[in-house]
Amino acid sequence: MTNKDARTPASTQNPTETSANGEAGKSVGWHKAYVEGTRPGLRVPVRQVHLTNGQSVTLYDTSGPYTDPLVDTDVRRGLAPLREDWIVARGDTEEYAGRPVRPEDDGIKHTSPRGGLRNLDAVFPGRPRLPRRGRAGRAVTQLAYARRGEITPEMEFVALRENVSPEVVREEIAAGRAVLPANVNHPEIEPMIIGKRFLVKVNANIGNSAVTSSIEEEVEKMTWATRWGADTVMDLSTGRNIHTTREWVLRNSPVPIGTVPLYQALEKVDGRAEELTWEIYKDTVVEQAEQGVDYMTVHAGVRLAYVPLTANRKTGIVSRGGSIMAAWCLAHHKESFLYENFEELCEILAAYDVTYSLGDGLRPGSIADANDEAQFAELRTLGELNTVAKRFHVQTMIEGPGHVPMHKIKENIDLQQEICDEAPFYTLGPLTTDVAPAYDHITSGIGAAMIAWWGTAMLCYVTPKEHLGLPDRDDVKTGVITYKIAAHAADLAKGHPGAQEWDDALSDARFEFRWEDQFNLALDPDTARGFHDETLPAEPAKTAHFCSMCGPKFCSMKISQDIRREHGGSRDEIEEGMARKAKEFAEAGNRVYLPIAD
Amino acid sequence: MTNKDARTPASTQNPTETSANGEAGKSVGWHKAYVEGTRPGLRVPVRQVHLTNGQSVTLYDTSGPYTDPLVDTDVRRGLAPLREDWIVARGDTEEYAGRPVRPEDDGIKHTSPRGGLRNLDAVFPGRPRLPRRGRAGRAVTQLAYARRGEITPEMEFVALRENVSPEVVREEIAAGRAVLPANVNHPEIEPMIIGKRFLVKVNANIGNSAVTSSIEEEVEKMTWATRWGADTVMDLSTGRNIHTTREWVLRNSPVPIGTVPLYQALEKVDGRAEELTWEIYKDTVVEQAEQGVDYMTVHAGVRLAYVPLTANRKTGIVSRGGSIMAAWCLAHHKESFLYENFEELCEILAAYDVTYSLGDGLRPGSIADANDEAQFAELRTLGELNTVAKRFHVQTMIEGPGHVPMHKIKENIDLQQEICDEAPFYTLGPLTTDVAPAYDHITSGIGAAMIAWWGTAMLCYVTPKEHLGLPDRDDVKTGVITYKIAAHAADLAKGHPGAQEWDDALSDARFEFRWEDQFNLALDPDTARGFHDETLPAEPAKTAHFCSMCGPKFCSMKISQDIRREHGGSRDEIEEGMARKAKEFAEAGNRVYLPIAD
Repeated sequence: MTNKDARTPASTQNPTETSANGEAGKSVGWHKAYVEGTRPGLRVPVRQVHLTNGQSVTLYDTSGPYTDPLVDTDVRRGLAPLREDWIVARGDTEEYAGRPVRPEDDGIKHTSPRGGLRNLDAVFPGRPRLPRRGRAGRAVTQLAYARRGEITPEMEFVALRENVSPEVVREEIAAGRAVLPANVNHPEIEPMIIGKRFLVKVNANIGNSAVTSSIEEEVEKMTWATRWGADTVMDLSTGRNIHTTREWVLRNSPVPIGTVPLYQALEKVDGRAEELTWEIYKDTVVEQAEQGVDYMTVHAGVRLAYVPLTANRKTGIVSRGGSIMAAWCLAHHKESFLYENFEELCEILAAYDVTYSLGDGLRPGSIADANDEAQFAELRTLGELNTVAKRFHVQTMIEGPGHVPMHKIKENIDLQQEICDEAPFYTLGPLTTDVAPAYDHITSGIGAAMIAWWGTAMLCYVTPKEHLGLPDRDDVKTGVITYKIAAHAADLAKGHPGAQEWDDALSDARFEFRWEDQFNLALDPDTARGFHDETLPAEPAKTAHFCSMCGPKFCSMKISQDIRREHGGSRDEIEEGMARKAKEFAEAGNRVYLPIAD
Repeated sequence: MTNKDARTPASTQNPTETSANGEAGKSVGWHKAYVEGTRPGLRVPVRQVHLTNGQSVTLYDTSGPYTDPLVDTDVRRGLAPLREDWIVARGDTEEYAGRPVRPEDDGIKHTSPRGGLRNLDAVFPGRPRLPRRGRAGRAVTQLAYARRGEITPEMEFVALRENVSPEVVREEIAAGRAVLPANVNHPEIEPMIIGKRFLVKVNANIGNSAVTSSIEEEVEKMTWATRWGADTVMDLSTGRNIHTTREWVLRNSPVPIGTVPLYQALEKVDGRAEELTWEIYKDTVVEQAEQGVDYMTVHAGVRLAYVPLTANRKTGIVSRGGSIMAAWCLAHHKESFLYENFEELCEILAAYDVTYSLGDGLRPGSIADANDEAQFAELRTLGELNTVAKRFHVQTMIEGPGHVPMHKIKENIDLQQEICDEAPFYTLGPLTTDVAPAYDHITSGIGAAMIAWWGTAMLCYVTPKEHLGLPDRDDVKTGVITYKIAAHAADLAKGHPGAQEWDDALSDARFEFRWEDQFNLALDPDTARGFHDETLPAEPAKTAHFCSMCGPKFCSMKISQDIRREHGGSRDEIEEGMARKAKEFAEAGNRVYLPIAD
């Protein structure tokens, strides 16, 4: 919607600063600040908004070091390994040679120009590093630590970030009601937590495909998405250079990165599902775990017996991973190799503290298929797998639909919470109608707000391009902003402590005609300011006691301020004083509208 | 979002036709059709979508004669008076000289260039007409007819339009649970109904202001809004030429037009609220009723005693009408002249069959003020006034908020339905958070879908410019499409008969890769097609069995079709046949993806 021009690294600079500089002599509306923890070096980034009335408002910040003018970021060097000391200090992990990178990791046909290397070197030039994993016999997941009663620096970090006690964080993780995705090989992240007792989170999907887009675009989309508020990013690349693209994204990402290993595994067998094997899949999971992927979608709930349940659906199987596993089961007429080898997979994820996102491969792809037998059969299996994962101390969240009409949404979250022992629910939308392609960020934003209010911990965004094409920069921004709205609306409805302070600050600014404060407090200051300036561009208009909707004479806010001026104080004072006040009002000229000069 | 180029009357032509013509040899995706009624000349317009598989889908259509290539429309002549014969045939109304148009009807300072006359003649050049009103002692409202057991042509029209029996329509109107806004002086409209047993309706606000916009722009916005699905349009003009702008809009509008007479009345006293009188207001109501306004927002619930209840609110009074009446009450320390003279006002509205929209002048303007004492005190008064209006056979709906967090929305509709004897609820949003200026079509679309599911009959749209400026063409379209999504999502959740057929048709097209059908069935075919073409512009791509999100090899839809091909039929057949099918699948080359040529 905006910023089409800001395609340089500068696009990740403070957006308000950029805009404000365009306005003579206006000071920056907000700056990056940090909340210090008890441990040396532990500081949590926040967005400090400075209001023209001298007050300031502190907001949750996901944009990473990119919005800190004091930090010199370089996409070729990558971000500083914030967590490295904490990980090393625990002494329960070790570096090792690791798996050699093979040509097929980036896809076989390197001759293909599509998605070929552009603008960036193929191999990430940043500092050389060895992969790290848990020592033999050591449980190195945040879940294991929490169960042992340990409060890790990562837990303290999210406690400060969420403004709760570290003990609450530990309890929620230990109970499996929350996850803290933090692969030991992704030290660059600023820790965050996903659970219903915390702020609702938003994931943004990026990823090239066989058809279009490059490495640089994907890194750019990641920084762009986090700048607008994405709490995690999933790299769903399916084209060439999957391994290399992921390396660039991970080394530059301040948020946890998720993937679907099955996509890369299928690339390795040139798209022939039946040629997939447990060995190829396992090798791909190790490859990604060594790179630092923080959570992985695993479609282990798509069992052979469930495939026929989708035969008479209106839209069959719409999950890519689900359809690939279904095709494999059909080809071999065998049980899913993911289901059969799930315990061994748990051992691998546990060694790196990779979090499970148990995928809903049979989610409905249309209103007609919502809450059907196939969907709930898989959900019951995900509940069973969640129990297994917890035995291995693997943090686990459960993925949810999809396309669901409003009256069938609550059943999804209630059933998931019951079947999966309150493991965090991570839903795509849901879309509440099928009739609005090009507006599915909205059809799904409606369902997302509702299901988050009822307990979903993280929302996977949907962009305007859903069903139609790959999202560009503007689509990513629109998708993230729409989902931040859904998430915050849910935080308000859940009565999350402090959530309403943001709304109150913005409404105060609106009521007092502090336009600049209104813009700076907005989810998207640039667009808010731009829309205002379309009709009232003049600088004085930003201090005007009216706006273009009503014009001076009709300004209800102005009238309300007169009323408050006259009727502030207790009800009694008001009642007894009304006649007198009315007289004063008349003597003052009975003006509903007071001149701007006033 | 699109169609920036189509600013001529052609912009009101069939959008798909326009687009389709751009594609060599492609036939038009839909055409305007009519469903014949039992009475001669009674035919209901519908949108007939032609699918490439030979089937067709019939959709509700609000676009009026403008989308019928067989009708020659001319904005200077106005639309044909569809209802005139029906009105005359009833014999209970009479033409009369009417109130002379005065200079102040268009505002006093004609010297002001702002909002001055441009591009169109000041006076509407269409056929001269005398105003019409009910004969002495005759009750001429649709409510009166319904109570007498009469099924009017208007009722039969909406029955065909909603696909229900005329008797259901009559019953709902007679019970006051639905309104059929149809001023005897607005014969141009295609009748529609507003009530919880019918399809959820959407209103679009237009109107110039003291700051900007012209007559032509407002007429253009009206036809533009109805083209995208607006069921009614409110003309909220507050600048110059209010009377003339409204005449142009009425004579060219196929949908009911609503207004807030108080805005024009205030213009007549140059914005000095305290100078308003019952006589000036009454004269303005008669002026607008003679022109043909179908429903009027009346803020008669803002009583003197309630004004102090807003003094300590975060955002005071945000309703323009509410703040004007509050200022008047303060200036005179008297009870509202609208409340005091409500019965006389009922007599006037009854004579023209103008429908009440009892305004919520004290609606909350921020999350902090939702569901407070001031809001509900006014609602109780609206319930009392609803009872009075019904005594005069005046059709009545009740307006609702505003800014309300999700967990406080249901209380609003439940309380309104109880207090107002199930009179239709007509809500603005509600906005579920204050933090997203420039995206309030989304913050409010969430609340709108929910409150409509729970029983709200009509939704007043909010555009991206809410709180920031006046909506332009693109904002109007975005607002209407967003609210059509909310309304249809609610129709689905309410299980409205036939609502899901639309979703099913689009999902079938999606599953079978009938791209053109998917576009033509979309709420916004132009934008859907445009997004698809951005990544796969080639014409063959529209018949391709994959899209740009996954590319050929990953297409889950394709895989699902293979599964269906193999597992169609009953569960038993499927089970017993799986081994054999798997064998065939292997012999067929185990291809997950079948070439496009296939």
